[in-house]
Amino acid sequence: MANQVESVKTYLEPDLLDRMHRYWNASNYLTIGQIYLQENPLLREPLRPEHIKPRLLGHWGTSPGLNLIYVHANRLIKDKDVNAIYLAGPGHGGPALIANVYLEGTYSEVYPKISADSEGMRRLFRQFSSPGGVPSHVSVPTPGSIHEGGELGYVLSHAFGAVFDNPDLLAIAVVGDGEAETGPLEGAWKSVKFLNPARDGAVLPILHLNGYKISGPTVLGREENEEVSQLISAHGYEVFVVEGDDPKTVHQLFAETLDICYAKIRACQEDARQNGFSSRPKWPAIILRTPKGWTGPKVVDNIPIEGTFRAHQVPVSDVQNNPEHLKILENWLRSYKPEELFDEEGHLLPELAELAPKGERRMGANPHANGGKILVELDLPEFKGYALDVKHPGTEHQESTRQLGKYMRDIFTRNADQKNFRLFCPDETNSNRLGNVFEVENRCSVGKIIDIDDHISPDGRVMEVLSEHLCQGWLEGYLLTGRHGLFATYEAFAMVSDSMTVQHAKWMQEGIKLPWRAPISSLNILLTSTCWRNDHNGFSHQGPGLIDTVLSKKGSIARIYLPPMPIACWRSRIAASAVKTMLT
Amino acid sequence: MANQVESVKTYLEPDLLDRMHRYWNASNYLTIGQIYLQENPLLREPLRPEHIKPRLLGHWGTSPGLNLIYVHANRLIKDKDVNAIYLAGPGHGGPALIANVYLEGTYSEVYPKISADSEGMRRLFRQFSSPGGVPSHVSVPTPGSIHEGGELGYVLSHAFGAVFDNPDLLAIAVVGDGEAETGPLEGAWKSVKFLNPARDGAVLPILHLNGYKISGPTVLGREENEEVSQLISAHGYEVFVVEGDDPKTVHQLFAETLDICYAKIRACQEDARQNGFSSRPKWPAIILRTPKGWTGPKVVDNIPIEGTFRAHQVPVSDVQNNPEHLKILENWLRSYKPEELFDEEGHLLPELAELAPKGERRMGANPHANGGKILVELDLPEFKGYALDVKHPGTEHQESTRQLGKYMRDIFTRNADQKNFRLFCPDETNSNRLGNVFEVENRCSVGKIIDIDDHISPDGRVMEVLSEHLCQGWLEGYLLTGRHGLFATYEAFAMVSDSMTVQHAKWMQEGIKLPWRAPISSLNILLTSTCWRNDHNGFSHQGPGLIDTVLSKKGSIARIYLPPMPIACWRSRIAASAVKTMLT
Repeated sequence: MANQVESVKTYLEPDLLDRMHRYWNASNYLTIGQIYLQENPLLREPLRPEHIKPRLLGHWGTSPGLNLIYVHANRLIKDKDVNAIYLAGPGHGGPALIANVYLEGTYSEVYPKISADSEGMRRLFRQFSSPGGVPSHVSVPTPGSIHEGGELGYVLSHAFGAVFDNPDLLAIAVVGDGEAETGPLEGAWKSVKFLNPARDGAVLPILHLNGYKISGPTVLGREENEEVSQLISAHGYEVFVVEGDDPKTVHQLFAETLDICYAKIRACQEDARQNGFSSRPKWPAIILRTPKGWTGPKVVDNIPIEGTFRAHQVPVSDVQNNPEHLKILENWLRSYKPEELFDEEGHLLPELAELAPKGERRMGANPHANGGKILVELDLPEFKGYALDVKHPGTEHQESTRQLGKYMRDIFTRNADQKNFRLFCPDETNSNRLGNVFEVENRCSVGKIIDIDDHISPDGRVMEVLSEHLCQGWLEGYLLTGRHGLFATYEAFAMVSDSMTVQHAKWMQEGIKLPWRAPISSLNILLTSTCWRNDHNGFSHQGPGLIDTVLSKKGSIARIYLPPMPIACWRSRIAASAVKTMLT
Repeated sequence: MANQVESVKTYLEPDLLDRMHRYWNASNYLTIGQIYLQENPLLREPLRPEHIKPRLLGHWGTSPGLNLIYVHANRLIKDKDVNAIYLAGPGHGGPALIANVYLEGTYSEVYPKISADSEGMRRLFRQFSSPGGVPSHVSVPTPGSIHEGGELGYVLSHAFGAVFDNPDLLAIAVVGDGEAETGPLEGAWKSVKFLNPARDGAVLPILHLNGYKISGPTVLGREENEEVSQLISAHGYEVFVVEGDDPKTVHQLFAETLDICYAKIRACQEDARQNGFSSRPKWPAIILRTPKGWTGPKVVDNIPIEGTFRAHQVPVSDVQNNPEHLKILENWLRSYKPEELFDEEGHLLPELAELAPKGERRMGANPHANGGKILVELDLPEFKGYALDVKHPGTEHQESTRQLGKYMRDIFTRNADQKNFRLFCPDETNSNRLGNVFEVENRCSVGKIIDIDDHISPDGRVMEVLSEHLCQGWLEGYLLTGRHGLFATYEAFAMVSDSMTVQHAKWMQEGIKLPWRAPISSLNILLTSTCWRNDHNGFSHQGPGLIDTVLSKKGSIARIYLPPMPIACWRSRIAASAVKTMLT
């Protein structure tokens, strides 16, 4: 079931291995600096209590793994000229990703005050987890991010949404073993069943098992490799396992595994693009098992830290007051040998800096992660052409969403060349009365298709899956990479993913404040089958809560449109009810 | 991977097989009657247009499978004196379950007007999907139900919640292949990793693949048996496949498979109860693959119906006006030979009636599905004893949830013998400052436990899993079967499962109207880490939306408690914030 490359010593040349390891050291060093230091960023003088932040906040545990993957992705990108973005599922991986986009130069371009020198590094450290600074998870202010840590469960759906209709794009999606316990994440593995290798890009999921959440073990972290591999394989992947705690060995294993996976992805795509789509490939996925808080303090106060849940956040605390703890921190920081990573002025040494890709190939600068930069306006028909001719008021029963279906049919037609519009629908397009889209478009599936099926094709752009989380997550990923779409759902069940709606609204609200983030298209939610017409379905189908949830958002972020018809009519069971909630 | 019993002809004796098949026919007949008929319930006269309901509503597609499972569960219960409840995941299985609880007599006991005769049958048919009647999915008014269809995704979490601390109980949980696509359902298979065979009851998941949702194929329906089996097996189950479209063959296969599964469940439990818990067993699970709308019309208007998505709801429509359709319906109804099922007065024939279990062994009458009947009051300490002694106002910083942790510790202690209280926590008990419970209680896991673990045991009643859906679903199942508990979560992430909160509130609101439903304990949600103290975590951790969502509920259903401290203090980052949302 699981593939594992043999322990190799020579896959990476010694010089490259040494430099990659030091680059990783640099990112780990910067991660720790963000958690602990307010002064003396390069440790040019002995560490003293006043160099330490007064309140220690942040999450070390997941960071070394995230850093390792970033450094290796950089090598792959440079080596094969890969167009890649990085999605960090683990909630509090913020300092790791910030460290890497800082090292590659993107961060200082976006935030000139955080310059690539010792003063910039000092500011980088001080802003982290401070009021008015940057939060402890990957978020909107992090260049290269389309995925916020915090509310867990959506890294795979965002990643797949990003690569739909992006044939050239690779989304490296790191799934933490905490996040892997959520329902939405477990439900998102099946996205490969909607991914067309001829038309779409690829996602490389990396399930990072470090064994613990805040204080308890993770479910998958306690399973044998063979068991976890069986699960991911059963979801439709070819699984590769990389496991270890010796950094140089893991570097060798991970480098070779990443190359194998990338070659497999390209082979799937080339086959489908040259010979046409035939059947769903088994896409590669990696299980990476490394210690929690890897390379951190092994023992503090006679209690084991590295490899345990105690490495989740701040592995050694009370540093200002406890001289022994201060010494542990200093030794830990010095173990990365900052003097072999940065020069006197705090610049990353040139032989390390050259390991990062250049320009828009840097994952922090990839325009797909700042989708507004590559957004092509949707060509919309004049909506007046879809008006119903009502000869006498109150004489006809019509459903407004049927007219919308015609409108959307024509959106599909007018934008067919751009391939930048999709419809997402958990409770199915016909039931939402949008069926006219099937005159020109199909449901998407790369599974088996049989004679009696109705408008299903691996080329379809109508995404039907009975998961509000998956529909909404895909759409968010699609929008954040600069495309357009609509999520149509029964009103009651829009609440299933309403926390995602709220998180997306917050993302938009923060994004507006960042001039370097180009505006993206709105998240359009069409509420159908509203509560007033559900007496036969019963109470479970009656829940107008999404409007309540969206109403509390600022008018600059969210708008609610109610259908233009008399209330008396709207409440009648015959009237079709369409409520459009728009996050702009 | 998959187990399949060989095609047998003789597992059930011919007489028993014949009677079980006719019992199944009776339940299918009553299902169709509910969808179509307003008069002539026993077809004592030729079917005429005026016998047909004016508006045809309901879902036939899933019903024959649900009925089959019910009939076979009845046999198992009678044969082995099993204490079982039935949870129907497929959303619109209402008429099937109603048919079965009517046949076994429970329905008429609860609703005397729906008597076990032709007039009662007429009323049974007319009430279905009518305004003021009963909805088309299993719901609160359905005796034997603790799980509402409609919002899909929770049948497994409810089932596992029901059997926690219920060593004698078997929950038969039918998972539809539509529901199987939801994230919360996929995330709930892992519940076996928290189920202790020595202490808890068992869940028998039956994944019913009939291939289609409303109009599209299901993801798992299109996979080979071997692939689906691999997935369920990887979740921790021993998988048995029953597949077919010939009813008598399927009866034989399913009967033998059900007996094998039950024997395995009992063997797991007996081993753990006699020899102590050793390791997580592979619990049995069944994949049942039968045609959608099985035994329904094969073709209508030259279009295939049975086995296709067109059998999802009303397989033959426009019956009042189309004589050919009327004939199809009549032939279909008569294919079950109602005259061989019911006597002249509409009573189920005695040789069929005796197939149902008796008294509280009937799944519609099992007290575990009406948990208030067996509820034991929680022994609560006097809360005043947990007050903090504040000598001078405004001089101390304390966290209110720490005091609650001590209170809950003592709840665990005082109710240790009853084994009827659990704490559910997705973002972990210590982080919610409830850690004092670990003085007397452990986290629950039946996975591998190692030296450095902190208070983990297969006997623990603190349920930590990083899934709000799973925590809340388990708790709902636990409450609905007459126990007590608390769900503690960061305020922002309570929204992840807020649609479940709403659905549970609706269940409670409807339940109050039913005198035969005994009141159950409240669903207590503790909101911690409120938005005001999350500047370092960032915006994703700030979301006070659950209170908004609960505020719109009636005061008789939901109450919101805010902490008794000055607002200025409450808003400060130092103040601990505890908000208790209570659904009573």
